[in-house]
Amino acid sequence: MISTAVLTISDRASRGEREDLSGPALVSEIEKLGWSLVKTGLVADDRDTIQAILIAWCSDKQVDLILTTGGTGFSPRDITPEATLAVIERQAPGLAEAMRASSLKMTPHAILSRAVAGIRNQTLIVNFPGSPRAAVENLAVIAPVLPHAIELLHENIEAEKGHSFRAK
Amino acid sequence: MISTAVLTISDRASRGEREDLSGPALVSEIEKLGWSLVKTGLVADDRDTIQAILIAWCSDKQVDLILTTGGTGFSPRDITPEATLAVIERQAPGLAEAMRASSLKMTPHAILSRAVAGIRNQTLIVNFPGSPRAAVENLAVIAPVLPHAIELLHENIEAEKGHSFRAK
Amino acid sequence: MISTAVLTISDRASRGEREDLSGPALVSEIEKLGWSLVKTGLVADDRDTIQAILIAWCSDKQVDLILTTGGTGFSPRDITPEATLAVIERQAPGLAEAMRASSLKMTPHAILSRAVAGIRNQTLIVNFPGSPRAAVENLAVIAPVLPHAIELLHENIEAEKGHSFRAK
Repeated sequence: MISTAVLTISDRASRGEREDLSGPALVSEIEKLGWSLVKTGLVADDRDTIQAILIAWCSDKQVDLILTTGGTGFSPRDITPEATLAVIERQAPGLAEAMRASSLKMTPHAILSRAVAGIRNQTLIVNFPGSPRAAVENLAVIAPVLPHAIELLHENIEAEKGHSFRAK
Repeated sequence: MISTAVLTISDRASRGEREDLSGPALVSEIEKLGWSLVKTGLVADDRDTIQAILIAWCSDKQVDLILTTGGTGFSPRDITPEATLAVIERQAPGLAEAMRASSLKMTPHAILSRAVAGIRNQTLIVNFPGSPRAAVENLAVIAPVLPHAIELLHENIEAEKGHSFRAK
Repeated sequence: MISTAVLTISDRASRGEREDLSGPALVSEIEKLGWSLVKTGLVADDRDTIQAILIAWCSDKQVDLILTTGGTGFSPRDITPEATLAVIERQAPGLAEAMRASSLKMTPHAILSRAVAGIRNQTLIVNFPGSPRAAVENLAVIAPVLPHAIELLHENIEAEKGHSFRAK
């Protein structure tokens, strides 16, 4: 079972000026998928804050997958991809490419998503748009392969170690 | 209305050894789209020169969108994407992905385009191939969403500031 | 004619714990394509080792194209894309995008490939998955345009130099 954390990134929602709809929308999908939810958060579009949270959550052995929502667009304050790129150790470009290609069939504006995905330690971070509908649609694109991705992030260290020990 | 600038990047055209066809082809499309053209330029495939011009044009509040043409291929002198990556603050990978995917339907050589797109200050920079036909075709792919992209680059700082002030 | 080198990257194969199947599979395809093979290698998923080999092979004027296989997934030891990004001077994102988009039609797991492609000196490096079948399928996607890509990497320096001299 995948253990997830959902981080909403929005100036207005963090100031209470509007309701966070995309975070709860992702949480609802996670429940439908049968995955566990271990953390949620809501922060402003502040690069240092986002990076600090991502780093802390990736240090938590309980978090396999962090889904961010918001801050992936062209507004001057949209900085989620840059914060994500700054903390990941390995990029996973295929996830964002597939989400954009799929969304493009529904709306030409999909190409404006600057979302990225990547790995820090044994945690996968994936950016989703701030629109609840787009976030849910994008999660549906990659959800089928995420259990296998998470499994790979965890199992192979032990497998390699085992082989290595047997070899000696 | 979008204010644009077109930069042709070509050793031979800059030395007068061949006519610049792709720059004028993009200018013609810009006129058809009803956008304004505030600057044009023609430079050699020299990384420092390209970067200096991109930086200067992005400091000009009048330039919303810079279209470069040329220097995106595999020739040793093709350095436009690297010059662009060096000056942008935020990448917009979906634009180049969509242009390549669309061109691929017309020619398999589309996958050799190394074009990138990204944002510096409030200006969007997009690389186009040096072939006039490919440049025009690629612009047609992203033109429908560019007005919204430019709007986002400009409007939200004020919107956020306004909200922030009201909140206090 | 393209001169190629094939580098298999696999902890287990390098320790002799399993047979290298993807390297020979790529070699077989290279022969069918009529390209020449000048080097093959087999190394562990060790970043420094991979980078050292890539750098050495790219210094060899005989190597136009390096095909790596393995180390592009989500396992903790999979580090081929990072080693490749560290040595290339110019990215060629369209190659990896096209391979993933094509593979996605066959399996949703294609989006987990973290493969990259890029140029160092006049050598093109392309990452392929470690599965022999996926590696061969991916090579088929880009093989038709590689001769032209390699031609561009080589011919234009001389062409430009010639023009430059004539201009003076």
